[in-house]
Amino acid sequence: MKLLLKETIDKLSQESSYQSVCHNTLARHPMPSIKNLEKIVDLLRELLFPGYFGNSVIDKESINYYIGVNTERLFELLSKEIFAGLCFACNEKEIKEGKGDSLRHNADTIAVEFIKQLPEIREILVTDVEAAYLGDPAAQNRGEVIFCYPAIRAISSYRIAHCLHEMSIPLIPRIISEMAHSETGIDIHPRATIGKFFTIDHGTGVVIGATTIIGDNVQLYQGVTLGAKSFPLDVDGNPIKGIDRHPIIEDNVIVYAQATILGRVTVGANSVIGGNVWITNDVAPDSKIIQLRPRDLLLTGGGGI
Amino acid sequence: MKLLLKETIDKLSQESSYQSVCHNTLARHPMPSIKNLEKIVDLLRELLFPGYFGNSVIDKESINYYIGVNTERLFELLSKEIFAGLCFACNEKEIKEGKGDSLRHNADTIAVEFIKQLPEIREILVTDVEAAYLGDPAAQNRGEVIFCYPAIRAISSYRIAHCLHEMSIPLIPRIISEMAHSETGIDIHPRATIGKFFTIDHGTGVVIGATTIIGDNVQLYQGVTLGAKSFPLDVDGNPIKGIDRHPIIEDNVIVYAQATILGRVTVGANSVIGGNVWITNDVAPDSKIIQLRPRDLLLTGGGGI
Amino acid sequence: MKLLLKETIDKLSQESSYQSVCHNTLARHPMPSIKNLEKIVDLLRELLFPGYFGNSVIDKESINYYIGVNTERLFELLSKEIFAGLCFACNEKEIKEGKGDSLRHNADTIAVEFIKQLPEIREILVTDVEAAYLGDPAAQNRGEVIFCYPAIRAISSYRIAHCLHEMSIPLIPRIISEMAHSETGIDIHPRATIGKFFTIDHGTGVVIGATTIIGDNVQLYQGVTLGAKSFPLDVDGNPIKGIDRHPIIEDNVIVYAQATILGRVTVGANSVIGGNVWITNDVAPDSKIIQLRPRDLLLTGGGGI
Amino acid sequence: MKLLLKETIDKLSQESSYQSVCHNTLARHPMPSIKNLEKIVDLLRELLFPGYFGNSVIDKESINYYIGVNTERLFELLSKEIFAGLCFACNEKEIKEGKGDSLRHNADTIAVEFIKQLPEIREILVTDVEAAYLGDPAAQNRGEVIFCYPAIRAISSYRIAHCLHEMSIPLIPRIISEMAHSETGIDIHPRATIGKFFTIDHGTGVVIGATTIIGDNVQLYQGVTLGAKSFPLDVDGNPIKGIDRHPIIEDNVIVYAQATILGRVTVGANSVIGGNVWITNDVAPDSKIIQLRPRDLLLTGGGGI
Amino acid sequence: MKLLLKETIDKLSQESSYQSVCHNTLARHPMPSIKNLEKIVDLLRELLFPGYFGNSVIDKESINYYIGVNTERLFELLSKEIFAGLCFACNEKEIKEGKGDSLRHNADTIAVEFIKQLPEIREILVTDVEAAYLGDPAAQNRGEVIFCYPAIRAISSYRIAHCLHEMSIPLIPRIISEMAHSETGIDIHPRATIGKFFTIDHGTGVVIGATTIIGDNVQLYQGVTLGAKSFPLDVDGNPIKGIDRHPIIEDNVIVYAQATILGRVTVGANSVIGGNVWITNDVAPDSKIIQLRPRDLLLTGGGGI
Amino acid sequence: MKLLLKETIDKLSQESSYQSVCHNTLARHPMPSIKNLEKIVDLLRELLFPGYFGNSVIDKESINYYIGVNTERLFELLSKEIFAGLCFACNEKEIKEGKGDSLRHNADTIAVEFIKQLPEIREILVTDVEAAYLGDPAAQNRGEVIFCYPAIRAISSYRIAHCLHEMSIPLIPRIISEMAHSETGIDIHPRATIGKFFTIDHGTGVVIGATTIIGDNVQLYQGVTLGAKSFPLDVDGNPIKGIDRHPIIEDNVIVYAQATILGRVTVGANSVIGGNVWITNDVAPDSKIIQLRPRDLLLTGGGGI
Repeated sequence: MKLLLKETIDKLSQESSYQSVCHNTLARHPMPSIKNLEKIVDLLRELLFPGYFGNSVIDKESINYYIGVNTERLFELLSKEIFAGLCFACNEKEIKEGKGDSLRHNADTIAVEFIKQLPEIREILVTDVEAAYLGDPAAQNRGEVIFCYPAIRAISSYRIAHCLHEMSIPLIPRIISEMAHSETGIDIHPRATIGKFFTIDHGTGVVIGATTIIGDNVQLYQGVTLGAKSFPLDVDGNPIKGIDRHPIIEDNVIVYAQATILGRVTVGANSVIGGNVWITNDVAPDSKIIQLRPRDLLLTGGGGI
Repeated sequence: MKLLLKETIDKLSQESSYQSVCHNTLARHPMPSIKNLEKIVDLLRELLFPGYFGNSVIDKESINYYIGVNTERLFELLSKEIFAGLCFACNEKEIKEGKGDSLRHNADTIAVEFIKQLPEIREILVTDVEAAYLGDPAAQNRGEVIFCYPAIRAISSYRIAHCLHEMSIPLIPRIISEMAHSETGIDIHPRATIGKFFTIDHGTGVVIGATTIIGDNVQLYQGVTLGAKSFPLDVDGNPIKGIDRHPIIEDNVIVYAQATILGRVTVGANSVIGGNVWITNDVAPDSKIIQLRPRDLLLTGGGGI
Repeated sequence: MKLLLKETIDKLSQESSYQSVCHNTLARHPMPSIKNLEKIVDLLRELLFPGYFGNSVIDKESINYYIGVNTERLFELLSKEIFAGLCFACNEKEIKEGKGDSLRHNADTIAVEFIKQLPEIREILVTDVEAAYLGDPAAQNRGEVIFCYPAIRAISSYRIAHCLHEMSIPLIPRIISEMAHSETGIDIHPRATIGKFFTIDHGTGVVIGATTIIGDNVQLYQGVTLGAKSFPLDVDGNPIKGIDRHPIIEDNVIVYAQATILGRVTVGANSVIGGNVWITNDVAPDSKIIQLRPRDLLLTGGGGI
Repeated sequence: MKLLLKETIDKLSQESSYQSVCHNTLARHPMPSIKNLEKIVDLLRELLFPGYFGNSVIDKESINYYIGVNTERLFELLSKEIFAGLCFACNEKEIKEGKGDSLRHNADTIAVEFIKQLPEIREILVTDVEAAYLGDPAAQNRGEVIFCYPAIRAISSYRIAHCLHEMSIPLIPRIISEMAHSETGIDIHPRATIGKFFTIDHGTGVVIGATTIIGDNVQLYQGVTLGAKSFPLDVDGNPIKGIDRHPIIEDNVIVYAQATILGRVTVGANSVIGGNVWITNDVAPDSKIIQLRPRDLLLTGGGGI
Repeated sequence: MKLLLKETIDKLSQESSYQSVCHNTLARHPMPSIKNLEKIVDLLRELLFPGYFGNSVIDKESINYYIGVNTERLFELLSKEIFAGLCFACNEKEIKEGKGDSLRHNADTIAVEFIKQLPEIREILVTDVEAAYLGDPAAQNRGEVIFCYPAIRAISSYRIAHCLHEMSIPLIPRIISEMAHSETGIDIHPRATIGKFFTIDHGTGVVIGATTIIGDNVQLYQGVTLGAKSFPLDVDGNPIKGIDRHPIIEDNVIVYAQATILGRVTVGANSVIGGNVWITNDVAPDSKIIQLRPRDLLLTGGGGI
Repeated sequence: MKLLLKETIDKLSQESSYQSVCHNTLARHPMPSIKNLEKIVDLLRELLFPGYFGNSVIDKESINYYIGVNTERLFELLSKEIFAGLCFACNEKEIKEGKGDSLRHNADTIAVEFIKQLPEIREILVTDVEAAYLGDPAAQNRGEVIFCYPAIRAISSYRIAHCLHEMSIPLIPRIISEMAHSETGIDIHPRATIGKFFTIDHGTGVVIGATTIIGDNVQLYQGVTLGAKSFPLDVDGNPIKGIDRHPIIEDNVIVYAQATILGRVTVGANSVIGGNVWITNDVAPDSKIIQLRPRDLLLTGGGGI
């Protein structure tokens, strides 16, 4: 039986069959490890919300030890993944010239710089927890919000990934945000800019595109898309990258379930966007947008539509 | 390098920086363990649908042994988590006065009471499997439904979490329902009331709010929201908690994909709600509601909109 | 305490209480193992995209060894699960007559046949990666697409499951597609037919039904449903299974977020379907369909709707 | 670097380089799995001494469930390993002729027969525990003996391996006894015959050869060898296998530390063999053998000998 | 097949068949967990020899964090096992009267008291490392001694177990010493008294009995027994427990390989005991004891003896 | 409670308390990892005896893949541990001057050189298997010898460790030999020189010192010591290291159980050394040495000695 597989094994091993999806750094430097990145996110959750994740019994006396050990572990894992991310962005020439080695030191420095920003990241996450708590009458207390709400997981990962993205780490922030996307159904691009007191209720299906700008105190519901319209092509027919093509949502806006807002439009401060609407133009501040009332029909039979 | 991290470690360890998200019971009683709750849900699935999950070969002769051992393990794990949940809801004064200890005994009693309801939970889940099987022409047999359908996982977790919620266990039911939410994209609040022969097709993005009431024989499709409208604030500007603010869906209703029904409205028995509609008023029994027909436009160029 | 549980254990062990959800093969042949199927999908990802998943350092010299070992492991695991799937579809009579044993040999043969198709599956997946890369201005390179994009995971699992479905393996393809559904929020039925250069942006909430036919070069966005309308019942009131009841999407069509297309309708080539629309009729080629413009209202107060 | 290894990989893969140590069944039937045999020994310890190993809380109400589940698991694992052992003893011709398949059924039957003997094995092990407890003034209670004494582990494994050896299972009994040898330093050949109330104090270095016969109520100390002298060769110069070449130790004998008894000699009942002696002749009943008194010398300097 | 096992399962579950080896506390309080005790020993090795075991990169800046976290974990695990040990020694009456509960608090106190002695234990272990290093010309440095020498593992476990034994913890010290016995072949009873600068070369087969007293600066070689002669029986024929029946080895003694010293005899300071001797009388200080020279014989043929 | 531990944590963290056992490289370079070395030994066993360890089903078609993958894994793990070993031997000055970095490249080169010697190591191990099989009438076939005999495990580890020792790797060979010592009770120093067709029966307690030289076709039994006598001290009272102080055992010698041979003596070819003797002088070729016959005494009563 196994003999029959030999031909397939050889086909699958032929360089021509995989080279078009093969990355430069393959075979020269380690690729990012999704397993390690999962450990990194777990460590960050433990560090940012001590007592909720990981070790279940922590007190004032022991917290310093735990944070010390976890910070060290984080440094080691993160430095390795940042290095892998930096290598991933090199071209073949740079790698041959040994640039990879010089990047190893950079990775250590960047990891330290990132870790130094954790107290600030915790500060803003505390405002997000507050917003989620105040925004949901079903929430009993802040602890429940941290434990259960997918929004807190998604927004934590976003704030971490955004911070790494601001430090120009390639790939790693995107993997972190997709891990949160898979866990929560909330897809926030690390390049997006989001103010404080941000919350998302339920969350499944939310999409926040790369050039989105969100002010303070904004609340989204499940299924909301802050996306792009079709994008201009260059003379070769390739999409022109790097253009601002997602919405600006100003302070104090609420967007209800399944609303779709596309393109570089601005939803003015204090507006309310109703569920299931589809918006591709600017919305003035203090607006209230809702879907047209659906046709009401008598049921005519069959049990279907 | 590591020396540079010391300052950050100290900042992250400062009580002031985490106390606003720090729960009363921290450092005194164990917090709920998400890992244990995952094991609990796995054990419950094995107990409720013997042969499908966990041990793959089970027969009439051995089933009693497996159910005995799994029930014991369930009791031990569940009792611990119920205890953690009860402590989570105590205030600092109660904990100092040693109330925690008296709760340990309660947790054991509640765990036994819960386990006693498993046969009844299995009975109603069997009706849900039936509804999913009959409701989907693509389903080959009931076994496939149990193995594959996210609805069965989400509804099982809901019925478990609802039962725990009825016994007034804090926090634990919510964590269980969010675990199912993450796995299936279906978000059912444990406080919701749902009749038998309930099913959800595909499921991603479904939201069923805390005070929702659903009759028998109701079928939902993916992306359906049974949610709340904006909620009244009290004199301090905080949301008034505990008000009935989600829909009532009567018997034999079908709600198609992406429909959004908001507020304490009633959808009358035997109604059909079409996809993508947005409803904030009562719907009479036997109604059929569909979205207005979209504008048809000729494509004018560019490949976009 | 434990004594109190004995009665419940006995109730849960009573055959009458679980037999309605009990499958024929229970207690005679092993049921499919979700754990093994997860390992199978991981191995397939390693084989199809060498270097990205699993072992992080692979080069031209060593790739043949890794593919050889992984192919062998795949064969062993897959053959076991295919066997379990074949048994699952037997009726009690066939099992008693020992058909199960003859199926074991079939399973080996089918596993080999499936593995032989992997080079072809890789070829078409390379076109899907290309489509995702070209279709998203935020994508930096093809490597990022493979690492991060849920579409690649969902479409890989679909192409694997579809291939197994074409070989008439029961149950297994459905479990594989539901595993991808849980991971990505994208629900593609293994029976659907999908052309090359297919991509889905963001993806959460996408549903593609069993009899859907999709041409080449089609792009979907999150929340799109290609579903069925209500289905005809036979004289006994059961749904008639096996009827074509899902849409045909021709070449070069784009469907934007949250659009719902229901029934055996055809969306003609080169059409663009806007977000949040609900379509139950044919759409001519080169059409452009968008939602009616929503009512704009001034915000009148209260912060809600 | 890796390129340099290719030649070595090819050398190590050449059949000629490993065929002399390659077994017949290689590549046709599974070899025994040491990992599984470790699980089997753990399960047997749990079954024979309930409460001491494995699940730490067992009571009268639940013990039946645990023993039921563990017996089932034991049956599955053991049957597999017995099958591997039976195949190991086949010659190439038998395997080609498909004898392997008929052995699978035998393995199931033998596994059941073995399990049926467990109650009897427990009975005799209880006498060994008693002997160890009475024989060591440092023992506080029987529980300590079961928990700590290497003799109990070694003798349990011996009694299990002996029982399998009596059923003519090849190889498996030897692996089980070597696992206990590694754990305890006590090496008892499964073919040896040992009466009840047997104990070994401390145990490290004890060797009991294949044709040894030990009566009831015998106590050994560490380092005791019950071994063979040189063995006769056949005309081809190979050792003649199967000859009785190890000692007979009659009832109520004590053998002190490091004593070496070699060859088919009989140590008569009620004898005491002192430490460090070397015996190659019969010892009459009721004898007492001790080493000659060593030379006493004054220390002359240097700190050494 | 499985049906055939039912009878055996029932036999093995019958109380009468296991009650003679069943301990009082079974079914009431948890038994000690060998798995936890292994974790405890690993943690203690990490704490006592930082950098060698467990985390492989430790420096002055981070050591405090690691020791803090490990001490906390140690406290939790140890307190649980001490509690199990205390319960193990209760009789049925004490347990029924609820003494178990009061022991829980004792266990916490004892665990703290034990941990407070760790710095002192480290101090004396440092002398043992020194003795091993100086005593073996093959040792390259102290680091090698800590990493490789079984003596260090056995003596560490002894010093830990002895400390727990001095605090009157039942059972636990014995399990710890038997774990080291299994790992190293060195069997030191926790009740023995051993001075500083103690070392054992190679070690396999060494036995040091419960009432042994060893001075400072003593070196043993492999296979040395410091054991008991036969012990007096009381009027009921049971061994009289608690009598001093093992040797006293004074300061600066060396005992070479396989020597056996039995009974409450004293080996005077500065003596050298040669290999393979058997001693049951006192040895004056400064003595040098060696075995009689063996008979030299010409080889007469056969290759054996 | 935890507060009470703070003082102990601080004491254990004080550099003065651990610096005497603290190695130079601590805190600068990783220490060897015993866990990795265990994986390395497992991989080597799989490579040297394909089919017996690790993957249980291997055939001619697939062996090349498995050996390729395992060789790669071996290279990665081994290179890391060799590097750790090289760093371990550096002094503080060398590390400060960055020598560590240059050693990383050396480690890769040495790992490759070592792996290239595996075919030769397999060749000589095949002779050891042959010797064990021929030397033990109880052995049924060579497969049993490889699976069960501790000698094969100990000698494999010795031949691996010896090869690494010859390449001047510090520390690592010693750790590998001590791991085998713990597993088998056989302690062979990696520096010893041992010819082909070497075997050890039973093995527990065997010690073979660092400067021992063993010819071809030598067989040892359990408890044999090839050790050193007291060793000369230098003017500072430290043992002079590096002197040849262990025996030379010439070709075709058999040494029976518990024999002790000490010092740089030569046991001439074809000699037989009986059990329990103690030898410190040369033994002529073709000699036969046995212990004096022990005193026979009548048993006088009491059951003891």
